[in-house]
Amino acid sequence: MEFIDFRLRWEGRINRSDITAFFGISVPQASLDIARYLELGPENLVYDRSSRIYLAGPSFKPIFASSNTPQYLNDLLALEAGFLEPESSFMGWRPPTALVPTPGRQLNAHTLVTLLQAIREQRGVKVLYQSMTHPESQSRDLSPHAIAHDGFRWHVRAYCHKREDFLDFVIARVLEIDFSESAGPGPLEDRAWQTKVDLVLAPHSGLSLSKRRAIELDYGMTGGTVTLSCRQALLFYLLKHLRLDVDQPSAPEAQQIVLLNETDVKARLAELQR
Amino acid sequence: MEFIDFRLRWEGRINRSDITAFFGISVPQASLDIARYLELGPENLVYDRSSRIYLAGPSFKPIFASSNTPQYLNDLLALEAGFLEPESSFMGWRPPTALVPTPGRQLNAHTLVTLLQAIREQRGVKVLYQSMTHPESQSRDLSPHAIAHDGFRWHVRAYCHKREDFLDFVIARVLEIDFSESAGPGPLEDRAWQTKVDLVLAPHSGLSLSKRRAIELDYGMTGGTVTLSCRQALLFYLLKHLRLDVDQPSAPEAQQIVLLNETDVKARLAELQR
Repeated sequence: MEFIDFRLRWEGRINRSDITAFFGISVPQASLDIARYLELGPENLVYDRSSRIYLAGPSFKPIFASSNTPQYLNDLLALEAGFLEPESSFMGWRPPTALVPTPGRQLNAHTLVTLLQAIREQRGVKVLYQSMTHPESQSRDLSPHAIAHDGFRWHVRAYCHKREDFLDFVIARVLEIDFSESAGPGPLEDRAWQTKVDLVLAPHSGLSLSKRRAIELDYGMTGGTVTLSCRQALLFYLLKHLRLDVDQPSAPEAQQIVLLNETDVKARLAELQR
Repeated sequence: MEFIDFRLRWEGRINRSDITAFFGISVPQASLDIARYLELGPENLVYDRSSRIYLAGPSFKPIFASSNTPQYLNDLLALEAGFLEPESSFMGWRPPTALVPTPGRQLNAHTLVTLLQAIREQRGVKVLYQSMTHPESQSRDLSPHAIAHDGFRWHVRAYCHKREDFLDFVIARVLEIDFSESAGPGPLEDRAWQTKVDLVLAPHSGLSLSKRRAIELDYGMTGGTVTLSCRQALLFYLLKHLRLDVDQPSAPEAQQIVLLNETDVKARLAELQR
């Protein structure tokens, strides 16, 4: 049923053989599914006798959440990037699609599985980690409690027994990993993780009206601003992502947006760096 | 079978009730599926009599492509962002996960459906578009042939009958859309789309050895470099994404990477802006 809804919405058509091929079911079963779908949305389906296919009706309205726009676009991205197998998606036809390539290593599965298990069972891990400050990799005892994506890399959020604080570790920089028995404080004690910070963004005032209007559409701003909510622990990455991390501002055309509550946000960021 | 493989790999365990609950099948049917899975991977499954669950064997090896790391991480991102319904994913337990929020409007479904249909049926569209150069939105006749994601926004690649060239249009800036009968040249004539450009990246040489090593891991570099291949039409967005678009370079710590074949790449970029 969700498959029928998805195909009608995004491809405008479906026939029995699409259903039998995808699910490996019989033609009578497929006819039954179409009949059940017609009961849910009588206006959604029109049979075209000449081509012998079902077309989306002119007043088609999707019935299932899986037919929504974000899910469609996410499938398209994942298929194109090779993260999703074509047989795991409802898509039959897809448009020629291109992605700006994102650099980044494929994570080691053993590392990821071990980190997930440690989080699930509240166990500690001992890792060999390539830090930014020591040329040689170093051993660290960690108690991980969550994972996070900074828009580019995956991190693990963990209590570090050496630094005696909660920190982020880039998963790709973990060279070796094993379980250890060191238990650490729980996620509720990770203040920077639990605290949310709001960022209020607006188009750069140095831009022309047309540019400001286009940027409002790009960022989904209403009334000229948009508010993003971010965990304090991830603030540094978000500011970097939005190019709001540099002290000397670049030209309005390159910068595009400004942070209206910059003083508050920078204060929250400074708390982390104490 | 893929469900069993996925759960064992990422959660280390499965029982019959996981299978019956997910697929709505009977207990005998679930037992049969487990037996069939055991034939494929006899070492993958160990029955634990005390807890009455199946555990992943110590030499577990995933059998299906849908259990791979990129698919798992993509599901995690999509679930967290709300792009994927929990019942569409094989995940039972998932770790606490956070994402850096990405600004961006949810696309209008009618606009997207119309663009997809135009690409599929090689039809033209008339759009009302908010450009960066005119305060008022303008009408444009387009012949779209592909869609592209620049790492932040979705674009449609189309022949513009006004500018008489192939250009990118940000989908969120399309305010109105309807079909038109203007046919344009096909995708094979879109040279900047068909041409691929290689970018050779390396850690910034002004960084310390430890920082260079960490960055090599982040970017998946081997022998100190990584090559990304990008359509010429998307070059501008990739350079912006990598912060390689600015003329005055920032500090090595902020910049992190350099483009080894900068002269070639900038020449390809200049071709677009003629």
